[in-house]
Amino acid sequence: MTRNATLTIAAVLAFGLSASAQTFDRSVRTAENFEPAIPRIAQDSAAAKKLAALKERTGKKPNILWIIIDDMGYGDPGCYGGGGAAGAATPNIDRLAREGLRLTSCYAQQTCTPTRSAILTGRLPVRTGLTRPILAGDKITKNPWSDEVSLPKLLGDAGYQTLLTGKWHVGEVEGMRPHDVGFDEFYGFYPAQKEISQRVDARRYPSLVHDKKMMAAFEGLGIGHHLVHGWKGGRTENVSSVESTEDMSRADQVLADFTVKKIQEMAKGDQPFFIEHCFMKVHCDNFAHPDFKGKSASKYPYKDAVVELDHHVGVLVAALEKAGVLDNTFVFVTSDNGPQMDGWPDAGYTPFRGAKGTTFEGGIRVPGIAYWQGMIAPARESDGIFDLMDLFGTALHLAEVPTDALPQDRYYDFINQTSFLLADTGKSKREVAYFWWGKELMACRMRQYKAHIKVVIPSVMHSYIDQATVQDVGLAPWFFDLYLDPKEEASVGHRLSPWLASVASKLRAHGALLRKYPPKNIGL
Amino acid sequence: MTRNATLTIAAVLAFGLSASAQTFDRSVRTAENFEPAIPRIAQDSAAAKKLAALKERTGKKPNILWIIIDDMGYGDPGCYGGGGAAGAATPNIDRLAREGLRLTSCYAQQTCTPTRSAILTGRLPVRTGLTRPILAGDKITKNPWSDEVSLPKLLGDAGYQTLLTGKWHVGEVEGMRPHDVGFDEFYGFYPAQKEISQRVDARRYPSLVHDKKMMAAFEGLGIGHHLVHGWKGGRTENVSSVESTEDMSRADQVLADFTVKKIQEMAKGDQPFFIEHCFMKVHCDNFAHPDFKGKSASKYPYKDAVVELDHHVGVLVAALEKAGVLDNTFVFVTSDNGPQMDGWPDAGYTPFRGAKGTTFEGGIRVPGIAYWQGMIAPARESDGIFDLMDLFGTALHLAEVPTDALPQDRYYDFINQTSFLLADTGKSKREVAYFWWGKELMACRMRQYKAHIKVVIPSVMHSYIDQATVQDVGLAPWFFDLYLDPKEEASVGHRLSPWLASVASKLRAHGALLRKYPPKNIGL
Repeated sequence: MTRNATLTIAAVLAFGLSASAQTFDRSVRTAENFEPAIPRIAQDSAAAKKLAALKERTGKKPNILWIIIDDMGYGDPGCYGGGGAAGAATPNIDRLAREGLRLTSCYAQQTCTPTRSAILTGRLPVRTGLTRPILAGDKITKNPWSDEVSLPKLLGDAGYQTLLTGKWHVGEVEGMRPHDVGFDEFYGFYPAQKEISQRVDARRYPSLVHDKKMMAAFEGLGIGHHLVHGWKGGRTENVSSVESTEDMSRADQVLADFTVKKIQEMAKGDQPFFIEHCFMKVHCDNFAHPDFKGKSASKYPYKDAVVELDHHVGVLVAALEKAGVLDNTFVFVTSDNGPQMDGWPDAGYTPFRGAKGTTFEGGIRVPGIAYWQGMIAPARESDGIFDLMDLFGTALHLAEVPTDALPQDRYYDFINQTSFLLADTGKSKREVAYFWWGKELMACRMRQYKAHIKVVIPSVMHSYIDQATVQDVGLAPWFFDLYLDPKEEASVGHRLSPWLASVASKLRAHGALLRKYPPKNIGL
Repeated sequence: MTRNATLTIAAVLAFGLSASAQTFDRSVRTAENFEPAIPRIAQDSAAAKKLAALKERTGKKPNILWIIIDDMGYGDPGCYGGGGAAGAATPNIDRLAREGLRLTSCYAQQTCTPTRSAILTGRLPVRTGLTRPILAGDKITKNPWSDEVSLPKLLGDAGYQTLLTGKWHVGEVEGMRPHDVGFDEFYGFYPAQKEISQRVDARRYPSLVHDKKMMAAFEGLGIGHHLVHGWKGGRTENVSSVESTEDMSRADQVLADFTVKKIQEMAKGDQPFFIEHCFMKVHCDNFAHPDFKGKSASKYPYKDAVVELDHHVGVLVAALEKAGVLDNTFVFVTSDNGPQMDGWPDAGYTPFRGAKGTTFEGGIRVPGIAYWQGMIAPARESDGIFDLMDLFGTALHLAEVPTDALPQDRYYDFINQTSFLLADTGKSKREVAYFWWGKELMACRMRQYKAHIKVVIPSVMHSYIDQATVQDVGLAPWFFDLYLDPKEEASVGHRLSPWLASVASKLRAHGALLRKYPPKNIGL
């Protein structure tokens, strides 16, 4: 166990709440190494009937399409309060929400690599070691994927064709690439947009672009700036290279075109498919595609990028329809974390406190839209807690992969939320979501309550990542009622001690799990 | 002119922007004493056609129903980001938005009396003198209504039956009551909810309720705690008295029942009607109606009150339908200002900076839903600027009252927004909205930009009104791009100097208007 993890447990225990504190927990643990879930037998049965009827009709397991937008804020889509009101209309995303299920308490990790690895492993970053964004020059001493069992691997074994299009950002070296860790095919970029464009962006990065020595050193870091095509088994080709900001501006168009082509191909085959389509936008630095330059009401590159992505979302869903598989494809649209404010104004909007790199709601609460024509009733909304890791468990269930196919020697944090998403009156089976910042246990949410035992406080406005400190809170956790205080401004733990005890006891038990299931140290 | 007004103009002029500064203003002044508007000839014509066809079918001028909710936050309704996500579902309000036009830049004044008087006079509070909430014991030296020409007066002259149900709060003395200033009928309470309930609320106000001397002094102030029924001409009856918090909890039910009954009656008559239905809730202190106690997901009284009001909104619209006048009634739902945070947690939610009593967006941006079956296309959304005073001009237009019926000796701030609301692709005709705080000119919005020359800064968290100071800003106005920075965190005027010049020149011209049209001083 790392020193940090030990400290964290000590901090939790220090609140002195006995294990026998009265709690209001409804969840039940069915296996020692699985996260407990709220039993909801009737809705499980309703969802099972829907799935059985669908399979009888189609004769196939359902397809799965995840659409992950990079760094988009909770408030950016119109259906979450932004859209036209924030200068960038999102009619396609809004339509999916209107015809599907809009989640208002959907949680990511607070940065990119942690979220992207967690949804593919079903495990918290602290367990896999992928606790922070992999940056240029990072030396990872042990490949974290080598002993993880990834979702594409499990789905592949269950008969699925698997594809990751777009941004990866969970390792560029051999053994860590998408096509090394389970995907049949990869077509995209390894790092985030700005890491790629900076070497050709003389306007923003003159001290890199105009300095040959600096550029040579930078190139030596080996950050990928190629569009890569990879296949399971290891074959890897560079399709093209980003050599201008205009090349960068066109990347998402190229990626969407590829996914559309693959949908057409795969829909004709006998196998179901799993596609994770990860947009490059709207991570800074955004360069508007020529077709979308000035197309937002705002005219700023970030807003034009939102309009562009919304268009691509519409095109991807239209491709499913054209290929005749719309009714047999589960679609989920989300973002990997809150807006990155140190890139502002090239950044998104969250109505909440904090931003990317914090465990306030602004960093972790993200849009989450589940759309499945004929399977998810239109115009549903739910504030039930959904952790993006639950996509892992839900995908396994849709693919009929039994959970005993998973190794018993490690802890799994996902919950199978199939019935929450599919049953017409489905409720979340997740009682609690836990929020980490690197190796620090920071906070958790239970029902409408959120307890923080540590917080990330920016020292300079908008600089949540680079100029922030992690601070212990005072004598008792900061405790917010998110219904009364969505912006986490006034801690009320002393007024709500029964709930505080409940939530704190969950934090304590969660921290103690690390003793039984020690985290991996991969040198990050 | 008051000293304050002079100072304000001086402050605006001090920015040193010449009158010839390049501006991006599209609005045109058609009369010296009317606010300029953006000409939109095609949509005016489209709206006129719709209205003509409707009149041909119904043979009557259209009815008008305004629904004003007290102190509800922009973020409270589900269609503005709250609803279930904030612990109080609002299916009825959301349905009106889904089937009508949802405005995302709808502005009130920053407190109650100013908004309520402005929408009935079409004039800014600084002009009428009703610049702040009328409080217990206020001595008003001159009845501001005596020389104002109110909307109900104008509509009455145009053949309308006019009714105000619910909260008034623009004067309790003879000559200032709703039925004195133009309404045919009044059925409601003069002051805000808490002013009424405090004398029977021993739990919150023991030092008042349990102190006979204090109570006698309080009663001497003469704050109305009766449900009053009044008729044009002066007849006034006390219907009942609030003698317990449960009485208070039932007030909005009683008021909604009354409006429903009047809709049934008036729909049968030959005259069109104008009803302003003003809820008592959700101004603090909220007491849940017995039928709604614990009916919100949150269970807090404020949230139960939101659920109750949403129910009443549904009932009022259903009454229009049942009476056969839904297609001939323009419905507008809004709030009179942002949430009053010094009553928190008995307070609403705004995603923006500030709250009631400030001219940040949190104080003035309110929900605004225009609903008119068959006349306003469903699912419309617009970020066009709408000032609640525009309801005045729009009502005049619907009632076919020509603007030359208005006196020429005073300035009118409304804009007729009929075609914005009715044309299927209607856009706002308002270029600029100006924001005052008492007698201080504070800020204005033009397109997505907002310039502050003074700001209200709370000295204690959540105490925006009682413990706030008005401060001049620095060398240049605080200048926010609300699309990039909806929370008004980072001033960017220096980066956007052409826009800053435009907006500042509007502020300057607006301030200078007070020289030509001096404000009234009513002693408040």
